[in-house]
Amino acid sequence: MNLQPTPTDKFTFGLWTVGNRGRDPFGEFVRPALDPNEAVSRLADLGAFGVNFHDNDLVPLDATAAERDRIVRDFRRTLERTGMTVPMATTNLFTDPVFKDGAFTSHDPQIRAYALQKTMRAMDLGAELGARTYVFWGGREGAEVDAGKDPIEAIKRFRFAIDFLCDYARSQRYGLRFALEAKPNEPRGDIYFATTAAYLGFITTLAHPEMVGVNPEVAHEQMAGLNVFHVVAQALEAGKLFHIDLNDQKPGRFDQDLRFGSESIKPLFFLVKLLEESGYDGPRHFDAHAYRTEDAAGVWDFARGCMRTYLILKDKAQQFAAHPGIQALLQEIRGDGTNEVDGFTPEGAEALKGRTFDRQALAARPLPYERLDQLVVDLLLGVG
Amino acid sequence: MNLQPTPTDKFTFGLWTVGNRGRDPFGEFVRPALDPNEAVSRLADLGAFGVNFHDNDLVPLDATAAERDRIVRDFRRTLERTGMTVPMATTNLFTDPVFKDGAFTSHDPQIRAYALQKTMRAMDLGAELGARTYVFWGGREGAEVDAGKDPIEAIKRFRFAIDFLCDYARSQRYGLRFALEAKPNEPRGDIYFATTAAYLGFITTLAHPEMVGVNPEVAHEQMAGLNVFHVVAQALEAGKLFHIDLNDQKPGRFDQDLRFGSESIKPLFFLVKLLEESGYDGPRHFDAHAYRTEDAAGVWDFARGCMRTYLILKDKAQQFAAHPGIQALLQEIRGDGTNEVDGFTPEGAEALKGRTFDRQALAARPLPYERLDQLVVDLLLGVG
Amino acid sequence: MNLQPTPTDKFTFGLWTVGNRGRDPFGEFVRPALDPNEAVSRLADLGAFGVNFHDNDLVPLDATAAERDRIVRDFRRTLERTGMTVPMATTNLFTDPVFKDGAFTSHDPQIRAYALQKTMRAMDLGAELGARTYVFWGGREGAEVDAGKDPIEAIKRFRFAIDFLCDYARSQRYGLRFALEAKPNEPRGDIYFATTAAYLGFITTLAHPEMVGVNPEVAHEQMAGLNVFHVVAQALEAGKLFHIDLNDQKPGRFDQDLRFGSESIKPLFFLVKLLEESGYDGPRHFDAHAYRTEDAAGVWDFARGCMRTYLILKDKAQQFAAHPGIQALLQEIRGDGTNEVDGFTPEGAEALKGRTFDRQALAARPLPYERLDQLVVDLLLGVG
Amino acid sequence: MNLQPTPTDKFTFGLWTVGNRGRDPFGEFVRPALDPNEAVSRLADLGAFGVNFHDNDLVPLDATAAERDRIVRDFRRTLERTGMTVPMATTNLFTDPVFKDGAFTSHDPQIRAYALQKTMRAMDLGAELGARTYVFWGGREGAEVDAGKDPIEAIKRFRFAIDFLCDYARSQRYGLRFALEAKPNEPRGDIYFATTAAYLGFITTLAHPEMVGVNPEVAHEQMAGLNVFHVVAQALEAGKLFHIDLNDQKPGRFDQDLRFGSESIKPLFFLVKLLEESGYDGPRHFDAHAYRTEDAAGVWDFARGCMRTYLILKDKAQQFAAHPGIQALLQEIRGDGTNEVDGFTPEGAEALKGRTFDRQALAARPLPYERLDQLVVDLLLGVG
Repeated sequence: MNLQPTPTDKFTFGLWTVGNRGRDPFGEFVRPALDPNEAVSRLADLGAFGVNFHDNDLVPLDATAAERDRIVRDFRRTLERTGMTVPMATTNLFTDPVFKDGAFTSHDPQIRAYALQKTMRAMDLGAELGARTYVFWGGREGAEVDAGKDPIEAIKRFRFAIDFLCDYARSQRYGLRFALEAKPNEPRGDIYFATTAAYLGFITTLAHPEMVGVNPEVAHEQMAGLNVFHVVAQALEAGKLFHIDLNDQKPGRFDQDLRFGSESIKPLFFLVKLLEESGYDGPRHFDAHAYRTEDAAGVWDFARGCMRTYLILKDKAQQFAAHPGIQALLQEIRGDGTNEVDGFTPEGAEALKGRTFDRQALAARPLPYERLDQLVVDLLLGVG
Repeated sequence: MNLQPTPTDKFTFGLWTVGNRGRDPFGEFVRPALDPNEAVSRLADLGAFGVNFHDNDLVPLDATAAERDRIVRDFRRTLERTGMTVPMATTNLFTDPVFKDGAFTSHDPQIRAYALQKTMRAMDLGAELGARTYVFWGGREGAEVDAGKDPIEAIKRFRFAIDFLCDYARSQRYGLRFALEAKPNEPRGDIYFATTAAYLGFITTLAHPEMVGVNPEVAHEQMAGLNVFHVVAQALEAGKLFHIDLNDQKPGRFDQDLRFGSESIKPLFFLVKLLEESGYDGPRHFDAHAYRTEDAAGVWDFARGCMRTYLILKDKAQQFAAHPGIQALLQEIRGDGTNEVDGFTPEGAEALKGRTFDRQALAARPLPYERLDQLVVDLLLGVG
Repeated sequence: MNLQPTPTDKFTFGLWTVGNRGRDPFGEFVRPALDPNEAVSRLADLGAFGVNFHDNDLVPLDATAAERDRIVRDFRRTLERTGMTVPMATTNLFTDPVFKDGAFTSHDPQIRAYALQKTMRAMDLGAELGARTYVFWGGREGAEVDAGKDPIEAIKRFRFAIDFLCDYARSQRYGLRFALEAKPNEPRGDIYFATTAAYLGFITTLAHPEMVGVNPEVAHEQMAGLNVFHVVAQALEAGKLFHIDLNDQKPGRFDQDLRFGSESIKPLFFLVKLLEESGYDGPRHFDAHAYRTEDAAGVWDFARGCMRTYLILKDKAQQFAAHPGIQALLQEIRGDGTNEVDGFTPEGAEALKGRTFDRQALAARPLPYERLDQLVVDLLLGVG
Repeated sequence: MNLQPTPTDKFTFGLWTVGNRGRDPFGEFVRPALDPNEAVSRLADLGAFGVNFHDNDLVPLDATAAERDRIVRDFRRTLERTGMTVPMATTNLFTDPVFKDGAFTSHDPQIRAYALQKTMRAMDLGAELGARTYVFWGGREGAEVDAGKDPIEAIKRFRFAIDFLCDYARSQRYGLRFALEAKPNEPRGDIYFATTAAYLGFITTLAHPEMVGVNPEVAHEQMAGLNVFHVVAQALEAGKLFHIDLNDQKPGRFDQDLRFGSESIKPLFFLVKLLEESGYDGPRHFDAHAYRTEDAAGVWDFARGCMRTYLILKDKAQQFAAHPGIQALLQEIRGDGTNEVDGFTPEGAEALKGRTFDRQALAARPLPYERLDQLVVDLLLGVG
């Protein structure tokens, strides 16, 4: 089992992930700021493919144009030197107090306009550094007080912004695809478009639906107790898996952004298997961070662990495909894939209505899922 | 405040709701079977508009054709006598062991065919009794063992079934609209299409998307901790709120199907307000049941309570709209609805990129949500 | 209904609650720092009884002795001027990076010693300002990595610290009672003593159990989906309700610390009713904060709302006690409180084993909970 | 790795677990009834140590004395023939409608008396078949309507029952120890004593606390999102782990009773490690059942899987203890276990208050939990 990551694995990290300084609602920073160029170098050394960023991960919010240009120039050199890529970029529309009640869905038309401006500039930055995917996470687009905001108006405002920004990306010939990222709550009491699925419907109502897909995040779906394997499967089936955020999370609690595979071993095995077998060829992006108890050195243990566990699970997926016992059981359970009904015709429907089925016999057919699942557990535990 | 329900309120109940006999995973029936005709009479007396049913709520699974016809004839007479309607019907694809691993998504082609047959027959029954909406709740379409079922194949199979049945309804000129109902889990470990939002995307991929909408159930969304007011708002915005199941639930636990408004007073106030103000004109369907501690008489207390609380909350919504303090705050918070940006033009975008915004000033604008929310709490509690 | 708070209502606020500046994991401060003396004055104007604090809410972590004395002197004057009290004090053992892996349960003996030192000094401060209750919230006493910490050792270390500090309080004749506050998670992946109940058992193992009780926090129990009314009832029955933290929370998500009564109207009605009817005479402490969307002025709306809703619910509890319909139903449901069995004797037990019970008749006794609960909903909504 | 269970492993199953027939709130039985003698034989063949039962798992509720005696005689013969034991017994106080609003906490004094009677008879039955532990799970001791039951009175009634039954067991010299089992909800909206911890405090208030401990169930704690490893550790530290129910569960949803280790691989590794290393020598009882999709044969796959995964995790625990990399890291993280403070003296406390600590240096000490946790993940996945 080769567990050494290489760029062909397409592992990426956000600058904000390895750069996370460990502040939380009850405690201050525990780690020093990490220079983005240092982050890129270290990740390159570990075998990563690229880095992603919010505009202000790279360029401070109040940087002058000259500062911006210098930062970008240096960063580009680092990318060139290390061979690292920037597959994705995104906008920070949540840290600054101006966005405290939303960006694209704010009541304030000036804030909405500013959010568009900030995103266009961030798209310029991302495109300049080679990003092909642009992520939208509307972390402040939500409410605690449902009396105060109209959720229908919020959808319309969000649509306006995405349509506007699609037009902008097209006008600039950036070749960007948009990936929308959902989250049920935190930092807002409830965030609009609470789940990845909420975006799948929304996308079909956009002016340029073909440009827009989703960026499911493991932890965000698990916060709502959803099965992330099923969520990603629906996105794939819809042709809309444009990006993915890999991390881990215990359900029903605050956003933990844990090291990939550190909690949900079995669910994430199925997710990795799906990504590897579905033909998904985008980045495997880790949107997680080291425990607050780690020091600066521990951050790289964290990063290594994310990639390592992904590769182990990928190997397990290959073992699964090659496992005679599992494959025999699957064949028994799944049958031969034939259909009794091939499509609607009035005559066929009438005939079907008149057929007799032996319910008892059909119900008696064995479905040895316990045996199958135990084989999977064995495989995951490296036994037998 | 007039709290006497009348048919114009469009309150409906499932036969299975007032007919619920109080069995649960740990205990046996506590109430006798309720005759559907008796249910209709009692609900009519209470001021309901109609009843809905699964095929086998009315006609037992193994009834002969003659028995079926007699049952339907009697039931029709009861409806005529009482003036009650049947706005919605649905299929029981979950009780019989044959469906233990799914109906439309079963691995077994014969079970899939049988599920189609059973649904066509149930649609015949529903249409015969006047139903205009046909609900699909895929309670067994899911998995505990993700090794055993392909969730992408499951989506395709479900789509095939819905397309087939749309064609059937059209061929019969039933004038039916379909409403898809989601649930995250229970009875399956995970149910496919876990949330209402998951169906909104799916519907756009159907052969007859205009025929198909959603049937959000309050408790099902709350099981996943989602904000049902937001969920229904998205369905309305998409033009897809074809039906609604009203009940109540504590988040993060088993499906409780509590009396409407018995737990989530504030969230359900916003839901009622939304339904009443959005132009939704479909049934207000209660999909709930009496506590297992109730006897047969208590079932009608339960039914009365569902309607009463809805009417109270509806009245509160009118008070909200007429409340000078609330409306003044809303105007302050929401502003005048003007926009700074009206649509994309390359020139406009360029100009916008160059504008200067005063972030501090924008962030300092007051958003008195605490005051607004307290006025809502006061209004709900009947104080001031 | 008199909704003007007065000191006899014993409403208290933490300095950290009205002083909360609205930082969260995704955003920066939105409100300026609030001077503790200003906080006391404003709260006094609103009718509060007192304020509580962590040591560093009042005295910065790195203050000199002279600075400390000046701060305390000024604060005492403010208390005297306003008539406000300090019923409770506590220690900040979570903000500083030194506590990132725990205070009393840290692996590092020096950190454990420092935590004792910091707490003794904070007890001195609290006692100096008149506190009678000392709260312990072990926010960092937990783990993300269960391989790294022994939870049995953690209990023993926590016990050592509490025993030590009881001895200290006794040796200083501070007359303090300790109140232990539980939380299931956040900021740690899992916090030891996850629920109030976990402390009830622990307290009985202490050297001075009579000095130590619990401080249940509404939101903390609700994060785990527990019924806070039941939790507080058990604490009362055990004679251990020494303090209470009132706020609000949606279950199964991050710690929201919402305005009291803003979400859980019905559960908090029962909690207020219990506090008022049980003879609990301690402070009604609000451990909550204003939405991040509020400005500095909105903080006082928040504070007013906490007290107002408490008083409304208290009034509803009196209405409940005086409501003839409710009381009649309760009498029907609860019976006359007689017992069939009064205590164990061998003969009585033998006789009881031989009795015949009519299970069907006993099961048939009506339990009109639906009717009762609807009367409660009516009462809460101010209808009838 | 020897994965063949033997009686020395002390694996036990409830008759109700392998006898589960797959009924759920939405579906009927899928498996035939399993004769208890057959269950014992099959489990003996698989290597189990014993079986446990509710009274009515073995003797139907309405059996005559003669029927009871015949059943017991036959069952005893089966036990003798197979060498199986009955380490634990319990009472079914939840299935019959008479218990719909509680047994020991019912409002009805006759129902409370009947519950005592039924439990005494069930204790007789258990003792007759050799049980040494008697479990109490108060599945119906709870409420949906908090207006209707006084939770303080409920505690007192429950205490009365346990005290009474302790006296009964003592008077009969049954040598039984009681083990109390908690659950947060289902089938009741909220169950009293929602968590194992709630019983730890309660036990100290009993007349015979030394006779009474707890029976934590993995799934029940996980339903509330609690860390079951921490829960069991607290029970062990209190000397109160008298029994344990092993199964699995996804948090925040209905009671799943999944095959042990099928979901929560990492948490259950720590639980097994704790049980094996703590000196706990009671049964490893599986309180779970086969998926509803299984047929009768699949039940034995389920039973085999429970034991197999336990043994695998037990072997992993030994690997953990012998792993040089893990042990070296643990030593680095945990230090040498010395203390800076050994106990309270006034002088020592005063000296400690005056010490100077270097917070920055203490905070800077590395805590390589990411590395440690990754080694655990590797070990669990059988890699490295």
